Amino acid sequence: MIVWARRAEVRSECARLEWCDETTETVEESVKDADLVVICAPVSKIPVLAHQIKDHLKPGAIVTDVGSTKHKLQIKSESALEGKGIFVGSHPMAGSEKSGHAHADETLFSGKPCFVTKGGQISKKAIEKVVGFWSALEMDVHVTDPEEHDQIVAFVSHLPHLTASGLSHVLSDPKYRHFTPFISTGFLDTTRVASGDLQMWRDIIRENREEILPALNEMIQTMESLRDHLQHGQIDAVMGMLEEGKSFRDDLVK
Amino acid sequence: MIVWARRAEVRSECARLEWCDETTETVEESVKDADLVVICAPVSKIPVLAHQIKDHLKPGAIVTDVGSTKHKLQIKSESALEGKGIFVGSHPMAGSEKSGHAHADETLFSGKPCFVTKGGQISKKAIEKVVGFWSALEMDVHVTDPEEHDQIVAFVSHLPHLTASGLSHVLSDPKYRHFTPFISTGFLDTTRVASGDLQMWRDIIRENREEILPALNEMIQTMESLRDHLQHGQIDAVMGMLEEGKSFRDDLVK
Repeated sequence: MIVWARRAEVRSECARLEWCDETTETVEESVKDADLVVICAPVSKIPVLAHQIKDHLKPGAIVTDVGSTKHKLQIKSESALEGKGIFVGSHPMAGSEKSGHAHADETLFSGKPCFVTKGGQISKKAIEKVVGFWSALEMDVHVTDPEEHDQIVAFVSHLPHLTASGLSHVLSDPKYRHFTPFISTGFLDTTRVASGDLQMWRDIIRENREEILPALNEMIQTMESLRDHLQHGQIDAVMGMLEEGKSFRDDLVK
Repeated sequence: MIVWARRAEVRSECARLEWCDETTETVEESVKDADLVVICAPVSKIPVLAHQIKDHLKPGAIVTDVGSTKHKLQIKSESALEGKGIFVGSHPMAGSEKSGHAHADETLFSGKPCFVTKGGQISKKAIEKVVGFWSALEMDVHVTDPEEHDQIVAFVSHLPHLTASGLSHVLSDPKYRHFTPFISTGFLDTTRVASGDLQMWRDIIRENREEILPALNEMIQTMESLRDHLQHGQIDAVMGMLEEGKSFRDDLVK
């Protein structure tokens, strides 16, 4: 495994780790003998890096990524490579609200879902190579179209993020400042993802806007239904919705 | 500490614990020598138990509770006691989505916020007695009016619950069944509280309906603002809201 990282101190920290065979000073140098290149960078930087390495790739080299959106990114990254490498999108769904090398964890990926996206000119062999990489890290790999990926993550990841951020935003109003001492684990867990890296979320929201909108609308409709039932004193109807939500989640953690 | 619990097996488990001096077969018997009675029961059962023990209380005995709503409950419990005990509402804000004796934890209360509610006929001495009890468990005790309590918990606790339940309800739709394998820690944390005990939440929602409605309306408005900004491609406006939400939460966990 050959590592290039933007910051020199991260490169020297990596050099000391068992799994790292070599670090290089430039990104171009790092890819020259690679069969598989994994770009771990914010969504907006992935095509930039793909463009930077394209002339240094071995013929037939596969380039993948870990970006949180896939459809537009696939088009941009393919275009950035100018046919000098095969771009296969990946999205390992593991991580936390913390970012950076300092929060690395060897069990981070194990058992977690990972998307690998197919379509266009991408050969079955190239897909298999990338699937094999994430499977070796014990991830639960699913091959989908980039568009299907974007719709799914809009609901399972981007909607929870916007919901958590919205809830935190409600309480952030200075008129509720005196509520702060009473905030406990319930609120903190419900809003945990709202502490995520803003630059990463800017990229996601910009790229996946069209898929996020219907998810957000469904959430608003659901909250409106709860509000309307409550307003009319229809406690059974509110509880019916809470019961479905609970039962769905309880099944997930079983 | 004298314990009465509804189920005999819980009573015999308690009897084996160091802090338990005695268990009694009936609730009436358990309170006869008590200066302070703590009713740990769902909100709808608290006045029922208060009524059941009233004729067995020592003169001047204080009765408190751990219910999640306070205004209506104070009125009902005072009325149930018929002047034969002083009702002082408490709400220790600790716990998890799990309920019951099996999930007891000696560090559960430490450092967590606890409300004690004042007002009406309640003497300063009675308040101090109850404050002292929760302080001895290392809780961060705040004395408020019952109405103020209900408004605060509507925002810091009931709104997160309805939001988490709403989000889980959106994903529970059978048309999204194929999204389930991609649900990861982000969604699970954001919805954790939605797995809470339904009976408890029925009581809370019924009793605190009027305070929950404005909180729910603010959440809907916030989600609508996010949706409108997104629809108009105003990424900076979306990010401004996310930034405020993140900064508020980051300060809480500092």
